[in-house]
Amino acid sequence: TKIKIGILTASDSCFEGKAEDKSSANLKILIEDKKIIPGKVVVQSCVPDDIEQIKEKLTIWSDALKLDLILTTGGTGFAPRDVTPEATKSILHKEAPGMTIAMIKASLDVTPLAMLSRLVCGTRGSTLIINLPGSKKGSQECLEFVTPAIPHAVDLLQGNKENVVTTHT
Amino acid sequence: TKIKIGILTASDSCFEGKAEDKSSANLKILIEDKKIIPGKVVVQSCVPDDIEQIKEKLTIWSDALKLDLILTTGGTGFAPRDVTPEATKSILHKEAPGMTIAMIKASLDVTPLAMLSRLVCGTRGSTLIINLPGSKKGSQECLEFVTPAIPHAVDLLQGNKENVVTTHT
Amino acid sequence: TKIKIGILTASDSCFEGKAEDKSSANLKILIEDKKIIPGKVVVQSCVPDDIEQIKEKLTIWSDALKLDLILTTGGTGFAPRDVTPEATKSILHKEAPGMTIAMIKASLDVTPLAMLSRLVCGTRGSTLIINLPGSKKGSQECLEFVTPAIPHAVDLLQGNKENVVTTHT
Ligand code: NA
Repeated sequence: TKIKIGILTASDSCFEGKAEDKSSANLKILIEDKKIIPGKVVVQSCVPDDIEQIKEKLTIWSDALKLDLILTTGGTGFAPRDVTPEATKSILHKEAPGMTIAMIKASLDVTPLAMLSRLVCGTRGSTLIINLPGSKKGSQECLEFVTPAIPHAVDLLQGNKENVVTTHT
Repeated sequence: TKIKIGILTASDSCFEGKAEDKSSANLKILIEDKKIIPGKVVVQSCVPDDIEQIKEKLTIWSDALKLDLILTTGGTGFAPRDVTPEATKSILHKEAPGMTIAMIKASLDVTPLAMLSRLVCGTRGSTLIINLPGSKKGSQECLEFVTPAIPHAVDLLQGNKENVVTTHT
Repeated sequence: TKIKIGILTASDSCFEGKAEDKSSANLKILIEDKKIIPGKVVVQSCVPDDIEQIKEKLTIWSDALKLDLILTTGGTGFAPRDVTPEATKSILHKEAPGMTIAMIKASLDVTPLAMLSRLVCGTRGSTLIINLPGSKKGSQECLEFVTPAIPHAVDLLQGNKENVVTTHT
Protein backbone atom coordinates (compact mmCIF):
# COMPACT_ATOMS: atom_id res chain seq x y z
CA THR A 1 0.00 0.00 0.00
CA LYS A 2 1.23 3.44 -0.94
CA ILE A 3 2.18 6.07 1.62
CA LYS A 4 -0.26 9.02 1.48
CA ILE A 5 1.81 12.19 1.35
CA GLY A 6 1.09 15.92 1.63
CA ILE A 7 3.54 18.66 0.66
CA LEU A 8 3.14 22.04 2.33
CA THR A 9 5.10 25.07 1.15
CA ALA A 10 5.50 27.93 3.64
CA SER A 11 6.63 31.01 1.75
CA ASP A 12 5.36 34.58 1.58
CA SER A 13 6.95 35.14 -1.83
CA CYS A 14 5.55 31.94 -3.39
CA PHE A 15 2.11 32.61 -1.87
CA GLU A 16 2.12 36.13 -3.35
CA GLY A 17 3.25 34.78 -6.74
CA LYS A 18 6.56 36.68 -6.53
CA ALA A 19 8.62 33.48 -6.61
CA GLU A 20 8.14 30.10 -8.25
CA ASP A 21 7.64 27.17 -5.88
CA LYS A 22 10.36 24.98 -7.37
CA SER A 23 10.96 22.99 -4.19
CA SER A 24 7.57 21.34 -3.78
CA ALA A 25 7.34 20.58 -7.52
CA ASN A 26 10.72 18.87 -7.28
CA LEU A 27 9.73 16.91 -4.15
CA LYS A 28 6.66 15.61 -6.01
CA ILE A 29 8.84 14.47 -8.93
CA LEU A 30 11.26 12.72 -6.55
CA ILE A 31 8.37 10.79 -5.01
CA GLU A 32 6.12 10.02 -7.98
CA ASP A 33 8.60 9.81 -10.88
CA LYS A 34 11.91 8.91 -9.23
CA LYS A 35 9.99 6.82 -6.66
CA ILE A 36 12.40 7.49 -3.78
CA ILE A 37 9.47 6.82 -1.41
CA PRO A 38 6.76 4.20 -2.19
CA GLY A 39 4.00 6.80 -1.97
CA LYS A 40 1.62 9.21 -3.65
CA VAL A 41 1.26 12.99 -3.18
CA VAL A 42 -2.45 13.36 -2.42
CA VAL A 43 -2.44 17.03 -1.43
CA GLN A 44 -0.19 20.02 -2.04
CA SER A 45 -0.60 23.58 -0.81
CA CYS A 46 1.23 26.86 -0.33
CA VAL A 47 0.64 29.15 2.65
CA PRO A 48 2.33 32.41 3.74
CA ASP A 49 4.91 32.33 6.56
CA ASP A 50 2.12 32.62 9.11
CA ILE A 51 2.17 30.40 12.18
CA GLU A 52 -1.63 29.99 12.39
CA GLN A 53 -2.06 29.04 8.73
CA ILE A 54 0.79 26.51 8.91
CA LYS A 55 -0.64 24.98 12.11
CA GLU A 56 -4.10 24.76 10.53
CA LYS A 57 -2.87 22.87 7.45
CA LEU A 58 -0.75 20.48 9.51
CA THR A 59 -3.64 19.77 11.86
CA ILE A 60 -6.26 19.19 9.16
CA TRP A 61 -3.92 17.09 7.03
CA SER A 62 -3.11 14.91 10.09
CA ASP A 63 -6.48 14.66 11.83
CA ALA A 64 -9.01 14.87 8.97
CA LEU A 65 -7.11 13.72 5.86
CA LYS A 66 -5.18 11.17 7.95
CA LEU A 67 -2.05 11.47 5.81
CA ASP A 68 0.83 9.10 6.53
CA LEU A 69 3.50 11.72 5.87
CA ILE A 70 3.60 15.52 5.62
CA LEU A 71 6.67 17.20 4.16
CA THR A 72 6.98 20.94 4.66
CA THR A 73 9.38 23.13 2.70
CA GLY A 74 10.36 26.69 3.61
CA GLY A 75 10.29 28.88 6.69
CA THR A 76 12.94 26.99 8.65
CA GLY A 77 15.73 29.56 8.62
CA PHE A 78 16.65 32.70 10.58
CA ALA A 79 14.54 35.29 8.74
CA PRO A 80 12.10 37.17 11.01
CA ARG A 81 9.11 35.56 9.22
CA ASP A 82 10.48 31.97 9.43
CA VAL A 83 8.09 30.15 11.79
CA THR A 84 7.59 26.68 10.28
CA PRO A 85 9.50 24.92 13.12
CA GLU A 86 7.49 26.76 15.78
CA ALA A 87 4.20 25.92 14.04
CA THR A 88 5.22 22.28 13.67
CA LYS A 89 6.47 21.83 17.25
CA SER A 90 3.27 23.29 18.66
CA ILE A 91 1.01 20.71 16.96
CA LEU A 92 3.21 17.61 17.34
CA HIS A 93 2.26 14.90 19.81
CA LYS A 94 5.76 13.40 19.85
CA GLU A 95 9.09 14.84 18.69
CA ALA A 96 11.61 12.82 16.69
CA PRO A 97 14.93 14.65 17.11
CA GLY A 98 16.82 11.69 15.65
CA MET A 99 15.50 12.61 12.19
CA THR A 100 16.64 16.20 12.68
CA ILE A 101 20.09 15.00 13.77
CA ALA A 102 20.31 12.69 10.74
CA MET A 103 19.44 15.49 8.30
CA ILE A 104 21.73 18.11 9.87
CA LYS A 105 24.62 15.65 10.24
CA ALA A 106 24.48 14.68 6.55
CA SER A 107 23.81 18.26 5.38
CA LEU A 108 26.86 19.56 7.26
CA ASP A 109 28.99 17.42 4.94
CA VAL A 110 27.57 19.49 2.05
CA THR A 111 27.75 22.98 3.63
CA PRO A 112 28.34 24.50 7.08
CA LEU A 113 25.28 26.70 6.45
CA ALA A 114 23.19 23.57 7.11
CA MET A 115 23.54 24.35 10.83
CA LEU A 116 21.12 27.24 10.23
CA SER A 117 18.30 24.86 9.23
CA ARG A 118 15.88 24.65 12.15
CA LEU A 119 14.23 21.39 11.07
CA VAL A 120 11.62 19.90 13.40
CA CYS A 121 10.34 16.32 12.96
CA GLY A 122 7.81 14.24 14.83
CA THR A 123 4.39 12.70 14.84
CA ARG A 124 0.79 13.76 15.36
CA GLY A 125 -1.51 10.78 15.72
CA SER A 126 -0.35 8.36 13.02
CA THR A 127 1.04 11.12 10.77
CA LEU A 128 4.79 11.67 10.42
CA ILE A 129 5.68 15.35 9.89
CA ILE A 130 9.08 16.38 8.54
CA ASN A 131 10.34 19.94 8.02
CA LEU A 132 12.60 20.32 4.98
CA PRO A 133 14.59 23.45 4.03
CA GLY A 134 13.08 25.91 1.58
CA SER A 135 15.65 25.61 -1.21
CA LYS A 136 15.20 23.06 -4.00
CA LYS A 137 18.68 21.65 -3.40
CA GLY A 138 18.40 21.61 0.40
CA SER A 139 14.95 20.07 0.48
CA GLN A 140 15.94 17.33 -1.98
CA GLU A 141 19.11 16.48 -0.06
CA CYS A 142 17.34 16.35 3.30
CA LEU A 143 14.50 14.21 1.94
CA GLU A 144 17.06 11.78 0.50
CA PHE A 145 18.79 11.55 3.91
CA VAL A 146 15.59 10.43 5.71
CA THR A 147 14.19 8.31 2.87
CA PRO A 148 15.71 5.00 4.08
CA ALA A 149 13.77 5.21 7.36
CA ILE A 150 10.40 6.51 6.16
CA PRO A 151 8.62 3.25 5.19
CA HIS A 152 9.53 1.65 8.55
CA ALA A 153 8.44 4.78 10.47
CA VAL A 154 5.07 4.83 8.69
CA ASP A 155 4.66 1.11 9.33
CA LEU A 156 5.28 1.56 13.08
CA LEU A 157 2.89 4.52 13.22
CA GLN A 158 0.14 2.29 11.83
CA GLY A 159 0.72 0.05 14.84
CA ASN A 160 1.98 -2.97 12.90
CA LYS A 161 2.45 -5.49 15.75
CA GLU A 162 5.14 -7.69 14.20
CA ASN A 163 7.41 -4.73 13.61
CA VAL A 164 6.87 -3.40 17.09
CA VAL A 165 7.92 -6.70 18.64
CA THR A 166 10.88 -7.10 16.27
CA THR A 167 12.10 -3.64 17.14
CA HIS A 168 12.00 -4.36 20.83
CA THR A 169 13.75 -7.71 20.65
CA THR B 1 32.90 4.20 44.86
CA LYS B 2 30.59 2.35 42.51
CA ILE B 3 27.92 4.06 40.45
CA LYS B 4 24.43 3.04 41.65
CA ILE B 5 22.41 2.05 38.58
CA GLY B 6 18.76 1.25 37.88
CA ILE B 7 17.52 -0.43 34.69
CA LEU B 8 13.91 0.20 33.68
CA THR B 9 12.27 -1.75 30.87
CA ALA B 10 9.20 -0.17 29.26
CA SER B 11 7.41 -2.83 27.24
CA ASP B 12 3.82 -4.05 27.14
CA SER B 13 4.85 -7.44 25.75
CA CYS B 14 7.60 -8.04 28.34
CA PHE B 15 5.30 -6.87 31.16
CA GLU B 16 2.60 -9.29 30.00
CA GLY B 17 5.14 -12.11 29.73
CA LYS B 18 4.63 -12.39 25.96
CA ALA B 19 8.26 -11.49 25.23
CA GLU B 20 11.51 -12.12 27.06
CA ASP B 21 13.28 -9.02 28.38
CA LYS B 22 16.64 -9.76 26.77
CA SER B 23 17.76 -6.14 26.67
CA SER B 24 17.84 -5.36 30.38
CA ALA B 25 19.45 -8.72 31.20
CA ASN B 26 22.15 -7.93 28.65
CA LEU B 27 22.68 -4.40 30.02
CA LYS B 28 23.21 -5.87 33.51
CA ILE B 29 25.82 -8.30 32.14
CA LEU B 30 27.63 -5.47 30.33
CA ILE B 31 27.84 -3.50 33.58
CA GLU B 32 28.49 -6.17 36.20
CA ASP B 33 30.38 -8.83 34.23
CA LYS B 34 31.98 -6.93 31.34
CA LYS B 35 32.41 -3.91 33.67
CA ILE B 36 31.93 -1.28 30.92
CA ILE B 37 30.79 1.12 33.68
CA PRO B 38 32.30 1.05 37.22
CA GLY B 39 28.91 0.46 38.82
CA LYS B 40 26.35 -1.87 40.28
CA VAL B 41 22.76 -2.52 39.21
CA VAL B 42 20.82 -1.99 42.45
CA VAL B 43 17.31 -2.10 41.01
CA GLN B 44 15.67 -3.48 37.89
CA SER B 45 12.01 -3.33 36.86
CA CYS B 46 9.64 -3.77 33.93
CA VAL B 47 6.58 -1.59 33.40
CA PRO B 48 4.02 -1.42 30.57
CA ASP B 49 4.28 1.34 27.95
CA ASP B 50 2.29 3.64 30.21
CA ILE B 51 3.44 7.22 30.72
CA GLU B 52 2.33 7.46 34.36
CA GLN B 53 4.00 4.21 35.42
CA ILE B 54 7.26 5.17 33.69
CA LYS B 55 7.22 8.62 35.31
CA GLU B 56 6.56 7.11 38.73
CA LYS B 57 9.52 4.72 38.54
CA LEU B 58 11.88 7.43 37.26
CA THR B 59 10.80 9.82 39.99
CA ILE B 60 11.06 7.34 42.87
CA TRP B 61 14.39 5.95 41.66
CA SER B 62 15.78 9.52 41.42
CA ASP B 63 14.28 11.18 44.49
CA ALA B 64 13.91 8.32 46.98
CA LEU B 65 16.49 5.71 45.90
CA LYS B 66 18.90 8.49 44.87
CA LEU B 67 20.39 6.41 42.05
CA ASP B 68 23.38 7.86 40.18
CA LEU B 69 22.22 6.54 36.80
CA ILE B 70 18.96 5.22 35.35
CA LEU B 71 19.02 3.41 32.02
CA THR B 72 15.69 2.83 30.32
CA THR B 73 15.16 0.37 27.49
CA GLY B 74 12.11 0.27 25.21
CA GLY B 75 9.31 2.58 24.21
CA THR B 76 11.44 5.07 22.26
CA GLY B 77 10.21 4.36 18.73
CA PHE B 78 7.23 5.36 16.59
CA ALA B 79 4.65 2.81 17.76
CA PRO B 80 1.48 4.40 19.15
CA ARG B 81 2.26 3.07 22.66
CA ASP B 82 5.89 4.32 22.69
CA VAL B 83 5.98 7.05 25.34
CA THR B 84 9.27 6.60 27.20
CA PRO B 85 10.78 9.85 25.83
CA GLU B 86 7.66 11.84 26.78
CA ALA B 87 7.66 10.33 30.30
CA THR B 88 11.37 11.04 30.70
CA LYS B 89 11.27 14.62 29.40
CA SER B 90 8.38 15.49 31.72
CA ILE B 91 10.29 14.55 34.90
CA LEU B 92 13.76 15.85 33.94
CA HIS B 93 15.14 18.97 35.60
CA LYS B 94 17.77 19.51 32.89
CA GLU B 95 18.04 18.07 29.38
CA ALA B 96 21.33 16.79 27.94
CA PRO B 97 20.82 16.74 24.16
CA GLY B 98 24.55 16.23 23.61
CA MET B 99 24.20 12.63 24.81
CA THR B 100 21.30 12.09 22.39
CA ILE B 101 23.35 13.56 19.55
CA ALA B 102 26.32 11.32 20.44
CA MET B 103 24.17 8.16 20.44
CA ILE B 104 22.27 8.97 17.23
CA LYS B 105 25.43 10.09 15.40
CA ALA B 106 27.24 6.84 16.20
CA SER B 107 24.15 4.67 15.64
CA LEU B 108 23.62 6.16 12.17
CA ASP B 109 26.93 4.61 11.16
CA VAL B 110 25.36 1.20 11.98
CA THR B 111 21.89 1.73 10.43
CA PRO B 112 19.81 4.61 9.03
CA LEU B 113 16.90 3.31 11.14
CA ALA B 114 18.72 4.80 14.14
CA MET B 115 17.14 8.14 13.22
CA LEU B 116 13.83 6.69 14.47
CA SER B 117 15.16 6.35 18.03
CA ARG B 118 13.64 9.16 20.09
CA LEU B 119 16.23 9.01 22.89
CA VAL B 120 15.94 11.61 25.65
CA CYS B 121 18.75 12.18 28.17
CA GLY B 122 19.16 14.51 31.11
CA THR B 123 19.24 14.89 34.84
CA ARG B 124 16.82 14.98 37.74
CA GLY B 125 18.51 16.16 40.92
CA SER B 126 21.81 14.26 40.96
CA THR B 127 20.50 11.35 38.87
CA LEU B 128 21.51 10.94 35.23
CA ILE B 129 18.72 9.40 33.11
CA ILE B 130 19.44 7.90 29.69
CA ASN B 131 16.90 6.41 27.28
CA LEU B 132 18.23 3.44 25.30
CA PRO B 133 16.46 1.68 22.41
CA GLY B 134 14.38 -1.40 23.13
CA SER B 135 16.36 -3.93 21.10
CA LYS B 136 19.22 -5.88 22.69
CA LYS B 137 21.60 -4.82 19.93
CA GLY B 138 20.50 -1.18 19.87
CA SER B 139 20.57 -0.74 23.63
CA GLN B 140 24.03 -2.29 23.90
CA GLU B 141 25.44 -0.13 21.11
CA CYS B 142 23.98 3.09 22.51
CA LEU B 143 25.19 2.32 26.04
CA GLU B 144 28.68 1.70 24.67
CA PHE B 145 28.60 5.06 22.86
CA VAL B 146 27.93 7.04 26.07
CA THR B 147 30.06 4.88 28.39
CA PRO B 148 33.23 7.02 28.08
CA ALA B 149 31.43 10.07 29.51
CA ILE B 150 29.33 8.48 32.27
CA PRO B 151 31.83 8.43 35.19
CA HIS B 152 32.66 12.12 34.63
CA ALA B 153 28.98 13.05 34.33
CA VAL B 154 28.15 11.26 37.60
CA ASP B 155 31.12 12.91 39.29
CA LEU B 156 29.94 16.39 38.21
CA LEU B 157 26.38 15.63 39.35
CA GLN B 158 27.72 14.87 42.83
CA GLY B 159 29.13 18.41 42.84
CA ASN B 160 32.81 17.43 42.94
CA LYS B 161 34.44 20.89 43.20
CA GLU B 162 37.82 20.09 41.62
CA ASN B 163 36.19 18.75 38.49
CA VAL B 164 33.86 21.70 38.19
CA VAL B 165 36.76 24.16 38.27
CA THR B 166 38.86 22.06 35.89
CA THR B 167 36.00 21.93 33.43
CA HIS B 168 35.62 25.69 33.48
CA THR B 169 39.29 26.53 33.11
CA THR C 1 29.25 46.72 8.86
CA LYS C 2 30.66 44.95 11.89
CA ILE C 3 28.69 42.43 13.92
CA LYS C 4 27.98 43.79 17.42
CA ILE C 5 28.93 41.09 19.92
CA GLY C 6 28.46 40.56 23.67
CA ILE C 7 30.35 37.96 25.70
CA LEU C 8 28.73 36.74 28.91
CA THR C 9 30.61 34.56 31.38
CA ALA C 10 28.50 32.51 33.79
CA SER C 11 30.75 31.29 36.61
CA ASP C 12 30.52 31.46 40.37
CA SER C 13 34.28 31.13 40.79
CA CYS C 14 35.12 33.84 38.23
CA PHE C 15 32.46 36.15 39.68
CA GLU C 16 33.92 35.69 43.17
CA GLY C 17 37.45 36.30 41.87
CA LYS C 18 38.53 32.75 42.77
CA ALA C 19 39.29 31.86 39.14
CA GLU C 20 40.58 33.85 36.20
CA ASP C 21 38.11 34.27 33.31
CA LYS C 22 40.48 33.03 30.61
CA SER C 23 37.70 31.92 28.25
CA SER C 24 36.03 35.24 27.56
CA ALA C 25 39.39 37.01 27.23
CA ASN C 26 40.39 34.41 24.66
CA LEU C 27 37.08 34.73 22.77
CA LYS C 28 37.65 38.49 22.50
CA ILE C 29 41.15 37.93 21.09
CA LEU C 30 39.80 35.43 18.54
CA ILE C 31 37.25 37.98 17.35
CA GLU C 32 39.14 41.28 17.49
CA ASP C 33 42.76 40.19 16.86
CA LYS C 34 42.43 36.89 14.96
CA LYS C 35 39.29 38.28 13.23
CA ILE C 36 37.52 34.90 12.98
CA ILE C 37 34.23 36.84 12.92
CA PRO C 38 33.88 40.28 11.24
CA GLY C 39 32.68 41.88 14.45
CA LYS C 40 33.41 43.93 17.55
CA VAL C 41 32.93 43.00 21.22
CA VAL C 42 30.86 45.91 22.53
CA VAL C 43 30.04 44.47 25.96
CA GLN C 44 31.50 41.85 28.26
CA SER C 45 30.29 40.76 31.67
CA CYS C 46 30.59 38.03 34.28
CA VAL C 47 27.65 36.82 36.38
CA PRO C 48 27.33 34.00 38.94
CA ASP C 49 25.69 30.69 37.93
CA ASP C 50 22.29 32.17 38.73
CA ILE C 51 19.41 31.66 36.33
CA GLU C 52 17.79 35.05 36.95
CA GLN C 53 21.01 37.02 36.49
CA ILE C 54 21.85 35.16 33.27
CA LYS C 55 18.32 35.73 31.91
CA GLU C 56 18.49 39.43 32.78
CA LYS C 57 21.77 39.99 30.91
CA LEU C 58 20.59 38.03 27.85
CA THR C 59 17.32 39.95 27.76
CA ILE C 60 18.83 43.42 28.16
CA TRP C 61 21.63 42.73 25.68
CA SER C 62 19.04 41.52 23.12
CA ASP C 63 16.18 43.96 23.64
CA ALA C 64 17.90 47.16 24.79
CA LEU C 65 21.46 46.93 23.44
CA LYS C 66 20.20 45.19 20.30
CA LEU C 67 23.35 43.11 19.90
CA ASP C 68 23.70 40.97 16.78
CA LEU C 69 25.35 38.09 18.62
CA ILE C 70 25.69 37.01 22.25
CA LEU C 71 28.24 34.34 23.15
CA THR C 72 27.97 32.81 26.60
CA THR C 73 30.72 30.78 28.23
CA GLY C 74 30.30 28.57 31.29
CA GLY C 75 27.49 26.87 33.14
CA THR C 76 26.62 24.34 30.42
CA GLY C 77 27.74 21.14 32.13
CA PHE C 78 26.32 18.74 34.73
CA ALA C 79 27.31 20.52 37.96
CA PRO C 80 24.34 21.33 40.20
CA ARG C 81 24.86 25.08 39.64
CA ASP C 82 25.09 24.83 35.81
CA VAL C 83 21.98 26.60 34.50
CA THR C 84 23.09 28.58 31.45
CA PRO C 85 21.13 26.36 28.99
CA GLU C 86 17.95 26.65 31.08
CA ALA C 87 18.34 30.45 31.33
CA THR C 88 18.98 30.71 27.59
CA LYS C 89 16.13 28.44 26.51
CA SER C 90 13.64 30.35 28.67
CA ILE C 91 14.33 33.71 26.96
CA LEU C 92 14.73 32.50 23.34
CA HIS C 93 12.02 33.22 20.79
CA LYS C 94 13.26 30.53 18.39
CA GLU C 95 15.59 27.58 18.97
CA ALA C 96 18.36 26.65 16.51
CA PRO C 97 19.24 23.02 17.34
CA GLY C 98 21.23 22.73 14.10
CA MET C 99 23.97 24.91 15.63
CA THR C 100 24.03 22.69 18.73
CA ILE C 101 24.27 19.58 16.54
CA ALA C 102 27.11 21.14 14.52
CA MET C 103 29.11 22.01 17.66
CA ILE C 104 28.56 18.65 19.41
CA LYS C 105 29.25 16.65 16.23
CA ALA C 106 32.59 18.38 15.66
CA SER C 107 33.52 18.39 19.37
CA LEU C 108 32.93 14.64 19.62
CA ASP C 109 35.84 14.19 17.20
CA VAL C 110 38.03 15.90 19.83
CA THR C 111 36.70 14.19 22.99
CA PRO C 112 33.75 11.98 23.98
CA LEU C 113 33.24 14.29 26.98
CA ALA C 114 31.78 16.79 24.48
CA MET C 115 28.48 14.92 24.82
CA LEU C 116 28.19 16.46 28.30
CA SER C 117 28.02 20.00 26.88
CA ARG C 118 24.41 21.15 27.08
CA LEU C 119 24.72 23.92 24.49
CA VAL C 120 21.56 25.82 23.59
CA CYS C 121 21.41 28.14 20.54
CA GLY C 122 18.70 30.29 19.08
CA THR C 123 17.38 33.77 18.52
CA ARG C 124 15.60 36.46 20.50
CA GLY C 125 14.32 39.22 18.22
CA SER C 126 17.20 39.87 15.84
CA THR C 127 19.87 38.66 18.29
CA LEU C 128 21.60 35.31 17.82
CA ILE C 129 22.51 33.66 21.15
CA ILE C 130 25.05 30.83 21.33
CA ASN C 131 26.08 28.90 24.44
CA LEU C 132 29.74 27.87 24.45
CA PRO C 133 31.43 25.56 26.98
CA GLY C 134 33.20 27.08 29.97
CA SER C 135 36.74 25.91 29.23
CA LYS C 136 39.11 28.06 27.15
CA LYS C 137 39.81 25.16 24.81
CA GLY C 138 36.18 24.03 24.50
CA SER C 139 34.80 27.51 23.96
CA GLN C 140 37.39 28.30 21.28
CA GLU C 141 36.76 25.03 19.43
CA CYS C 142 32.98 25.43 19.49
CA LEU C 143 33.15 29.05 18.33
CA GLU C 144 35.39 28.00 15.45
CA PHE C 145 32.86 25.29 14.46
CA VAL C 146 29.98 27.80 14.09
CA THR C 147 32.06 30.68 12.69
CA PRO C 148 31.42 29.83 8.99
CA ALA C 149 27.65 30.31 9.44
CA ILE C 150 27.54 33.35 11.72
CA PRO C 151 27.71 36.22 9.18
CA HIS C 152 24.91 34.65 7.10
CA ALA C 153 22.78 34.02 10.22
CA VAL C 154 23.18 37.64 11.36
CA ASP C 155 22.36 38.86 7.84
CA LEU C 156 19.11 36.82 7.78
CA LEU C 157 18.15 38.04 11.26
CA GLN C 158 18.38 41.62 10.00
CA GLY C 159 15.75 40.68 7.42
CA ASN C 160 17.97 41.08 4.35
CA LYS C 161 15.46 40.36 1.55
CA GLU C 162 17.88 39.16 -1.15
CA ASN C 163 19.31 36.53 1.15
CA VAL C 164 15.89 35.34 2.23
CA VAL C 165 14.81 34.78 -1.37
CA THR C 166 18.10 33.12 -2.31
CA THR C 167 17.80 30.75 0.59
CA HIS C 168 14.30 29.74 -0.41
CA THR C 169 15.11 29.20 -4.08
NA1 NA D 1 11.83 21.48 24.02
